[in-house]
Formats: sequence, C-alpha cells, structure tokens
Amino acid sequence: MPKRIRFSLNPNIEPTVPDSSNEVKYGIVDNGMIVETPSFDSTEKGASHPMASVRLLPPCWPSKIVCVGRNYPEHARELGNEPPAEPMIFLKPPSSLIADGDRIVYPRISGRVDYEGELGAVISRRARQVRREEAFGYIFGYTCVNDITARDLQKKDGQWTRGKGFDTFCAVGPWVVPASEVRLDELRVQTYVDGVKKQDAPIAEMMFPVDAIVAFVTEFMTLEPGDLIATGTPPGVGAMQPGSVVRVEIPGLGAIENLVVKG
Amino acid sequence: MPKRIRFSLNPNIEPTVPDSSNEVKYGIVDNGMIVETPSFDSTEKGASHPMASVRLLPPCWPSKIVCVGRNYPEHARELGNEPPAEPMIFLKPPSSLIADGDRIVYPRISGRVDYEGELGAVISRRARQVRREEAFGYIFGYTCVNDITARDLQKKDGQWTRGKGFDTFCAVGPWVVPASEVRLDELRVQTYVDGVKKQDAPIAEMMFPVDAIVAFVTEFMTLEPGDLIATGTPPGVGAMQPGSVVRVEIPGLGAIENLVVKG
Repeated sequence: MPKRIRFSLNPNIEPTVPDSSNEVKYGIVDNGMIVETPSFDSTEKGASHPMASVRLLPPCWPSKIVCVGRNYPEHARELGNEPPAEPMIFLKPPSSLIADGDRIVYPRISGRVDYEGELGAVISRRARQVRREEAFGYIFGYTCVNDITARDLQKKDGQWTRGKGFDTFCAVGPWVVPASEVRLDELRVQTYVDGVKKQDAPIAEMMFPVDAIVAFVTEFMTLEPGDLIATGTPPGVGAMQPGSVVRVEIPGLGAIENLVVKG
Repeated sequence: MPKRIRFSLNPNIEPTVPDSSNEVKYGIVDNGMIVETPSFDSTEKGASHPMASVRLLPPCWPSKIVCVGRNYPEHARELGNEPPAEPMIFLKPPSSLIADGDRIVYPRISGRVDYEGELGAVISRRARQVRREEAFGYIFGYTCVNDITARDLQKKDGQWTRGKGFDTFCAVGPWVVPASEVRLDELRVQTYVDGVKKQDAPIAEMMFPVDAIVAFVTEFMTLEPGDLIATGTPPGVGAMQPGSVVRVEIPGLGAIENLVVKG
C-alpha cells in the first residue's frame, strides 16, 4: 500500500510550510524507509531515508481545509443538536496544521479543548460543480484528522472560526493512502486519550458520505488539488488536558498521535 | 503613491491563480502604466506595460482571508444584531477571490445576494501573538474589498462559510497602497450600485480598528505575508441583482467595480 507523505530533512521546520518551499519533499513509506518521489503523486523513485531520520509534515498542503459539522447523528445529539438537513460546512485555516508527532498547544484563553477524530479526504484535481456520481473521481486518497476544538469559545463566539482555528488545532497524517487502496465501507474512526478508547464508529454512520460532501461543497466553492476535507466526528468527543496523548486511528489507514502541551 | 498590483499578461487566467504560478507578475501603477517589479514589495523596476494591456489579479495572494463581522455598530443593528463585545471572526476561502473588473456570479441557489464594502488590510510578515501596540508594524498596506454575501444562506446555515464563500464572492483591489502612504483616520468606505450611493461611512466608526483586529486574531491564528483582513462593513448593506454594477470606493485609496451576472 503506497503511503504518500510530505517530509523535510530539516528537523526544525514549521509544520505549516507550504509546498512551494524547497525544504518540502515527497515520498512513499515502505518498510520503515521513505523513498523520495519528485512530486506528491509521482511513482518515480529517488533517494531513500530511514523513517526516523526525517521530519514528517502534514501529508498535503491544502489551500482550504473544509470541515463538516454534525455529520454523525449520535454526535450531533450528544452536543444537544439535531442532525442537520444539509452538510454543515466550516473552514479551518492552514495555519492550524500539524503533523503526526507534533504538539497540540492548549490555549491559555480556553478552559475546554476537545479532540474530534475524523476521516480526511484529499482532493486530486480542481473540482467545481461536481455531480455526486462523479465525486470519487476527485479524491486522491484518505488520511486521519484530529479536528481539535476549543468547545467553550466555539459556543461563545457563534461562528466557529476561533474555537476551531487555533494554531496546532488540525492534526493530519501520518500519510495519505490512495483512494484505489481504500475500502471506505470497512473503515472505522477511533480516538484514544492516554490509551483509553473514546471514539469508535464506522464511517458508514456518516449522514453525508464523502461523495455527497464533495458535490455539496463544489456547488459553491472550487476545490483545488491538495485541499483537505474533514468529514466530521463520530460520538464520544471529550476534553483533553495538557499532558494528554491523543491518538486518532483509522485501522487499515494509519494513526496520528499528538501530545497536548500548555500554551 | 506606489500602487502595488498583481497582474498577468494572460487575459484568460483565473483570478485565483496563486503567487507560485509563473504567469503572475508584480508591478507598480504609474500614470496609466504598469512598471514590473521582481516581487510584491520590491522597488526594482523592470519592463513597462500599458495598464489596459494586462489582466489585473487580486493584489495579494492570501493563505487566509480573515473577516470581521458586525464591526460597525450601525451595521450590526440594521441586521437586528447587538454590536459584539469582541471581534467576530470568520474566514472566506481563497477560491472566492476576484479582481477589479471581474464578474460576480449570482448563485442559482440564493435569492438574496448583498454587497458589503470594506477596507482591506494586507499582512507584510508573519504575525503571531502580536500586541496591539506593535500591530501596525505587520501591515503592508490597504485595499478595497467587497465581502459579497448570500444573505439567505448565511441566515439559514448558521455558520457563514457557504453564504460568504461562493466563488467570486470576494472582490479585492485594484491595488494595495503601502501603509506609510495611508492616513487611516481620513478614510471612508463608499459603495455604489449602478451609480447610486448605498454605503458611506468613516472607518473611524469601526468598533475594533485594524490594530485591535491584528492583536485579537494573532492571539489564536498566525498570519502570513499576503494574508488579507476584511475589516467589516458599515451600514447600508443591501441586495444586488444580475446586471448590477457594484463599486466599492475608498477615496484616496482606489475603487473596484464588478458586474453581477447570473450563475
């Protein structure tokens, strides 16, 4: 299974570095080694590096992070909301991106910060007014997302931009698995805090599946290659604390793990 | 006054083309001519082009378009809202950008599309947890913004992402005037529909001025060079129709004009 990554040989690079930086490299993970590729979707092989010697970056560089709220009925209800009639769309800023292994910074101005494990879908080519029947043709592959949320600020502000938009609030990775390798109907999203399972649901429980989301979003907003869709979180959301280690795992796809630290 | 633009010699280019494209050029407008510069903020001069021979692009390429809602008390009240206690932040996607002279597409799925004339501020360098006293040191310059809004979908959705985020819903330009040339306290925002003045207010009426917005936003979200802040709209918002020509003018800064067409 070709696991596509972005990485850098500079251990001190910021996770928000865009594709245009010459410090960003692309590769395929193979047996604990990383094989360089000239671009994100190329199959041409270059130099090899031990996985432990590189700095993983978020596996795509999105011009937009498009998120779906309340996409699992039981999650909508656990926060006291009715499941919506249409996909509920909001944006996270690219400045919120971190990779597997990076730290989540708990903001000083929030008293309640939640994990939200999610399936991420990465766009392969420009998508504008795409019909649902064609939508899977625009998906490059899938990854794990933690849509971290300052729940108190989300409620207080009304608009979710601040509560969802802090630096380090969008953990993604560790890699993207090409869509052709993924059986969507078999996937589950699981979230663990300090080893304790908190979320575990089949993505089949989504009200609006990936193809429906792509059709809904591209009716108003053009998606570009590398754009990321966070497809919503299942029930079981809850708080993290400084010192918590949070793991979002999609068995068969991968897992990301991030330590929460005080801001 | 050095008016900074982005432009292309390709008349068919999309307005959302990023800086990384080799079809994007930078320049200074001087007496109806455009003088090329090697980068957005360089003073080195290259070839000249008649203004009429180039395609204007949005004058910055933001990784984020950060907008402030209800920043003028009389505008908050005209839509039935109380002025907020803190800046109300939301995002528009880069895919919504258009330049001066481009067309605004009236979506088929909306029955009410409004203009919102605004002052835009462009970020000069990475800004993270900036104190208000230092905030003006992070502003490259100012421009005109039309924060176009599908009012019916904004109200229906709760989150403003769709109502504010359609392709062509963020008109910006025509240029950026460097901050050193701008007397903020003298500026007014004016909006005209088919030549009839609809909005006209001093930006001094903002509840949260530019420096306060930068301090508030960078407490949670790192701003990057080229990021755009749309500072909110004064009272007088109202509907546009297919066929309307909408002009946002900030006397002393510039004006953008866009024709509304059916989607």
